[in-house]
Amino acid sequence: MTDRTGRVTCDITISADGYSAGLNQTEERPFGDDGGDGSGDKLHAWMFETPDENRAEIDQIAAARAFIMGRNMFGPVRGPWDRDRRWNGWWGDNPPFHAPVFVLTHHPREPQPMDGGTTFLFVTDGIASALAQAREAAGDGDVAIHGGATTINQYLSAGLIDELRLHIVPLTLGAGTRLFEGVPPLNLEQVRSRPASLVTHVTYRVLSGPV
Amino acid sequence: MTDRTGRVTCDITISADGYSAGLNQTEERPFGDDGGDGSGDKLHAWMFETPDENRAEIDQIAAARAFIMGRNMFGPVRGPWDRDRRWNGWWGDNPPFHAPVFVLTHHPREPQPMDGGTTFLFVTDGIASALAQAREAAGDGDVAIHGGATTINQYLSAGLIDELRLHIVPLTLGAGTRLFEGVPPLNLEQVRSRPASLVTHVTYRVLSGPV
Repeated sequence: MTDRTGRVTCDITISADGYSAGLNQTEERPFGDDGGDGSGDKLHAWMFETPDENRAEIDQIAAARAFIMGRNMFGPVRGPWDRDRRWNGWWGDNPPFHAPVFVLTHHPREPQPMDGGTTFLFVTDGIASALAQAREAAGDGDVAIHGGATTINQYLSAGLIDELRLHIVPLTLGAGTRLFEGVPPLNLEQVRSRPASLVTHVTYRVLSGPV
Repeated sequence: MTDRTGRVTCDITISADGYSAGLNQTEERPFGDDGGDGSGDKLHAWMFETPDENRAEIDQIAAARAFIMGRNMFGPVRGPWDRDRRWNGWWGDNPPFHAPVFVLTHHPREPQPMDGGTTFLFVTDGIASALAQAREAAGDGDVAIHGGATTINQYLSAGLIDELRLHIVPLTLGAGTRLFEGVPPLNLEQVRSRPASLVTHVTYRVLSGPV
């Protein structure tokens, strides 16, 4: 096993009331009632409308050497994987990860290599196992808990995230999937905070997990 | 009636997960399980430990010409006002408001003048009436909805707040009184955002209220 020097990081875009997605998510509207058309366009306007201004934060998201995501973030399909209608994520043939992506699921599936260095690997034995595998794959690089909020909340509750990078955007959703929902109190250190025109970026170090 | 040019503002300090106070509030621990001793000291460390750095935000809180607060913020006493044990707020003989403070309550009470220009006035006919009275008192100045979060959420739900100034601090509480709880979706404009060492200040203009 590689000596671990990398961190476990997490970037997440949230509304001012802490939601990363709205209610009523569907395949056509993966972000549900998100204040826009369900595509997450309003939540992520800072990335798509003002990318130059937010270059450092965007590049940082892609810098991890391994990623972990929940199955709901990987795709809308549920139950056993369908061999006839193969779902390989939302991101096309060349996903932006360029690294191993560990997908939490209850249903086994063979690894799925993609173009550009991304491989989706399917983990059926829980979040700790996924993290151990991702750390091994990342070597001395960072592992990113990519989302969604339900998966991030599981890792926060387990005290397994070192650095949490919030991208807080100017709308509220009122309901949906909320970051920190059900997570016991955390002691944080604000290590960076930067305003941009459509977002406020705040980076916290998690000093101590749930007690 | 004075021509109104003032705004309705709201300053509130919240944890990274959106709480302004924890569970189990008591007279001795008005902020409950707040990550500290219940006095709100950890939530408000930015005001008390680094006041020079946050002078503009602190001065801004006091700049309103009339204030509105919920009875729970005014004090821990419940039910009809006790003439023998008169509660005049948490702030001593010379409260920091130096202006009329309208307290929402179900129980009538005569106005209570204090030193330094503060007068506590008790409003029994609801939030709209309190705002109308506060606007009249403020003239062309701002009216501040001073809290707590439950009162602020009522005003947000009614579409009656123009400017919301969040002071987001590096801890989570996990439970308690949460800003935006039960408030329908809001469309906001981020008008200012400023980092300081123990807090991130974010000011939103409320573009449209609940639809």
